Amino acid sequence: MFAWLPLGLKVRRKIEAIIREEMENAGAQEVHFPALLPREPYEVTGRWEEYGDGLFRLQDRKGADYLLAPTHEEVFTLLVKDLYSSYKDLPLSIYQIQDKYRDEARPRAGLLRGREFTMKDAYSFDYTDNGLDTSYQAQRDAYERIFTRLGLEYVIVKADAGAMGGSRSEEFLHPTPVGEDTFVRSAGGYAANVEAYTTTVPDAIDFAALPEPTVFDSPDTPTIQTLVDLANAQQPRSDRPWTAADTLKNVVVALKHLDGTRELLVIGLPGDRDVDLKRVEVAVAPATVEAANEADFAKNASLVKGYIGPWSATGPMLGEESATSIRYLLDPRVVDGTQWVTGANIDQKHVFGLVAGRDFFADGFIEASDVRAGDPAPDGSGPLETARGMEIGHVFQLGRKYAEALGLKVLDENGKLVTVTMGSYGIGVTRILAVIAESNNDEKGLIWPRNVAPYDVHVVAAGREEVIYDVAGSLIESLEATGFDVLFDDRRKVSPGVKFGDAELLGVPIIVIVGRSAGEGMVELWDRRTGVRTPVAVADVALEVARL
Amino acid sequence: MFAWLPLGLKVRRKIEAIIREEMENAGAQEVHFPALLPREPYEVTGRWEEYGDGLFRLQDRKGADYLLAPTHEEVFTLLVKDLYSSYKDLPLSIYQIQDKYRDEARPRAGLLRGREFTMKDAYSFDYTDNGLDTSYQAQRDAYERIFTRLGLEYVIVKADAGAMGGSRSEEFLHPTPVGEDTFVRSAGGYAANVEAYTTTVPDAIDFAALPEPTVFDSPDTPTIQTLVDLANAQQPRSDRPWTAADTLKNVVVALKHLDGTRELLVIGLPGDRDVDLKRVEVAVAPATVEAANEADFAKNASLVKGYIGPWSATGPMLGEESATSIRYLLDPRVVDGTQWVTGANIDQKHVFGLVAGRDFFADGFIEASDVRAGDPAPDGSGPLETARGMEIGHVFQLGRKYAEALGLKVLDENGKLVTVTMGSYGIGVTRILAVIAESNNDEKGLIWPRNVAPYDVHVVAAGREEVIYDVAGSLIESLEATGFDVLFDDRRKVSPGVKFGDAELLGVPIIVIVGRSAGEGMVELWDRRTGVRTPVAVADVALEVARL
Repeated sequence: MFAWLPLGLKVRRKIEAIIREEMENAGAQEVHFPALLPREPYEVTGRWEEYGDGLFRLQDRKGADYLLAPTHEEVFTLLVKDLYSSYKDLPLSIYQIQDKYRDEARPRAGLLRGREFTMKDAYSFDYTDNGLDTSYQAQRDAYERIFTRLGLEYVIVKADAGAMGGSRSEEFLHPTPVGEDTFVRSAGGYAANVEAYTTTVPDAIDFAALPEPTVFDSPDTPTIQTLVDLANAQQPRSDRPWTAADTLKNVVVALKHLDGTRELLVIGLPGDRDVDLKRVEVAVAPATVEAANEADFAKNASLVKGYIGPWSATGPMLGEESATSIRYLLDPRVVDGTQWVTGANIDQKHVFGLVAGRDFFADGFIEASDVRAGDPAPDGSGPLETARGMEIGHVFQLGRKYAEALGLKVLDENGKLVTVTMGSYGIGVTRILAVIAESNNDEKGLIWPRNVAPYDVHVVAAGREEVIYDVAGSLIESLEATGFDVLFDDRRKVSPGVKFGDAELLGVPIIVIVGRSAGEGMVELWDRRTGVRTPVAVADVALEVARL
Repeated sequence: MFAWLPLGLKVRRKIEAIIREEMENAGAQEVHFPALLPREPYEVTGRWEEYGDGLFRLQDRKGADYLLAPTHEEVFTLLVKDLYSSYKDLPLSIYQIQDKYRDEARPRAGLLRGREFTMKDAYSFDYTDNGLDTSYQAQRDAYERIFTRLGLEYVIVKADAGAMGGSRSEEFLHPTPVGEDTFVRSAGGYAANVEAYTTTVPDAIDFAALPEPTVFDSPDTPTIQTLVDLANAQQPRSDRPWTAADTLKNVVVALKHLDGTRELLVIGLPGDRDVDLKRVEVAVAPATVEAANEADFAKNASLVKGYIGPWSATGPMLGEESATSIRYLLDPRVVDGTQWVTGANIDQKHVFGLVAGRDFFADGFIEASDVRAGDPAPDGSGPLETARGMEIGHVFQLGRKYAEALGLKVLDENGKLVTVTMGSYGIGVTRILAVIAESNNDEKGLIWPRNVAPYDVHVVAAGREEVIYDVAGSLIESLEATGFDVLFDDRRKVSPGVKFGDAELLGVPIIVIVGRSAGEGMVELWDRRTGVRTPVAVADVALEVARL
């Protein structure tokens, strides 16, 4: 939680003003909901529980349950339900700029991830899927205009809607090495959050002629590389050496379900890949995921650590003990007919030539492998590169989830009750400010983009002569008359050097130095970003500033 | 807690804009604090406990205590402590417009007293008492300008600072029959909250020649009036009959202290007066007050119900049992030498001619009596009249209470550390909106004052002919070009009558009806407040609106 000082608050208000203008341009109306909300609607949608420790919960003096809203889908839905009942009232887009509260496990980096933060959240209400597409596009377009006006580089990536459900979902990421999200993109235009990346599935292979698998002794193979070395020593391939990609790695993860139960899951994937727990988490949401621990292994004798092989509830088993209670899911690359060097579910034994679809089956597939530079874009637009970004906006189609849960229906043209379909559109206002600051500074201080700078012009009176203050005063008058916000450093007991340093620190983009030549009608225009100082006649300053 | 719809929110933003302008004019800078705050600073000042059930408290995932701030003195103080250390940094006035949370026992009347509400709270920081007076006056002046611009009638009354401590304290009350506060004022200019009224103390009377008191039987005197009747029957006065004002009523109240203990208190006051519990509460703050109950009497045999007389820890006692553990406080009118008909602390017995300062003493005086029309103003400016008002602003001098508790000191001109003195200045933003609405409506709907109306002009297209929409469109263009906010009712399937009704309901002060004569270049200007409709040429509308 942070306190805002005057200049930061001014920047924030300018960001908010740009967002409001573009929301208005997108046909959205501003409303405002309480931050403190009753439990009931969140109970109905299941989110009172789903949010887990991330929700700030409290009780009032009568013992009734409340929460500090982490997001407002429920009450927006209820408001529309309260006010409207006909298709004629739709489409409707409404938004608010309001504080949100999330009891983050790891708040970090100041405003980038705080526990109290400000969001613009908009919601659209339509009674047809086409209508939702139109409303979604209007918000998406508005977001593009907003980030462009804010001077913020962005990439639109396909996103997983996660706990929110819904269909179409895109994130606006600001590319930055300090970003929390990894995303991938191809030269051909594909871009996605790694959580939303889908693996290209190879064709199945005919396995009719493949030899039977053979079990072999494999002591001292704690890593994939040691296994590969042993395979190359024991049963060298004629065409090429065995590599990690020929092995099938079986990784045990633990799911924590909402009801508190813990479920083990074994994921089979090529040995040259790693499990990306964030991708797994998206696949198994709303459960959360962690690596299995020693206790998990101790409780499940069928899990022979270091020698786990595939099994399936529906297919033949390897190993001595049944383990059907544990689900086995495969990376989509492990198609029928692929052959693998993998664990035999027997201590110190592996197996050669285990064939998918013949020797083992899975309970299903899962997008669990990490995504890497060079992987193919799923739309065929070329190999991927990876980058880091910070989420600054998110547009997604909620569909009918909330409307169904809370009973938001309207009468359509035929007098039939239909459930409303919704979109949800969020921008992190306070986070954006932090991202702008992170991207606009040098070793001397901030360099605010003009559209969000706390002031348009910073006038520095550099010297003690009275004429300096007189000239500065009339200069400021003319600047303000032209419509500029001016910050005036009129401290008389502070040296010009200190004032210049403060001006660089504060980062107003245009600095006007009124100094020795003021008496001759000359001042200097100092561009904070380039550092260039240009002499300008006092009479021309307002015009010159306007030109910049 | 309330959700804001678009038009209400626009009114609120206009109120906030006026407040911001006048804060800036008063030299105050805007900052912004979290609503969710840690317990510690409120623990240091004692308010974590003092607020009792009125505070929303919660814990984060680590079990740390937080509160939803009911007011922000503590963190403003800590901010200044964090940033400043010298008298050169002062005076400083800073403010925020932020949501506040109070878990009211009796939230009422919508926005007038909600549990989540918005306040402008400003704080001044000075290192001398004179400085505080100047800062206080600047805020007080700003408040006068704000309420004037909002078109809100107000009375400035002396207020008790209550739990806040401090010296000078004034409330801005909006006179209204639905107000929660009773205040008194004299024709000569005195005005005060009844809690702040001080009784005029009469001169003491020489009691040397007064007769001894006499005890008399007084069965069946459940009320002051029955006692007076009995007195007139048993021992009639020669000069005039006994009246209620000759009796001394002794009322038992129970204090609830912060530490949970319950203390009984007996208050002696003239029988024609009633105890005003709110005035008592101010006098005994931070304890709270309620009437004594049967259990209190049962536990204290010395309290002879219906026959309680005065006693004192320092003076002679009446009655059979000692009651020194219960404090006895007197109304300031009960000066030495006054004679009273009062209880004898013996069942069914009263006493005549009990003389204050001779026959009984008190542990002190208390402002407990109700204040009435006709009572004298304490400054001698004439008799009081009473009225009801709603608090819309409060300015008061906190003094050094918070700075001392939180260690806010600065170095003065002599290099000596001095404790800072503070002022606190609050306006209830959302309450003001409700007060304006309460004072500006008729049976058809709202009538917003121009300065805060959601729109400047409401254009109604009254009819289906295309020319009406064409004329309305170009009219709106010219109005917007002149700088007016325009609401356009362009619904084509809604009758003019319904539109007129909606326009009256919404209460935009100027309505322009574009109807049948639009083709001839004529429209009607409709003054929402007076109801007068005036034909105006389309070309003159913008000018005419500007004139209004």
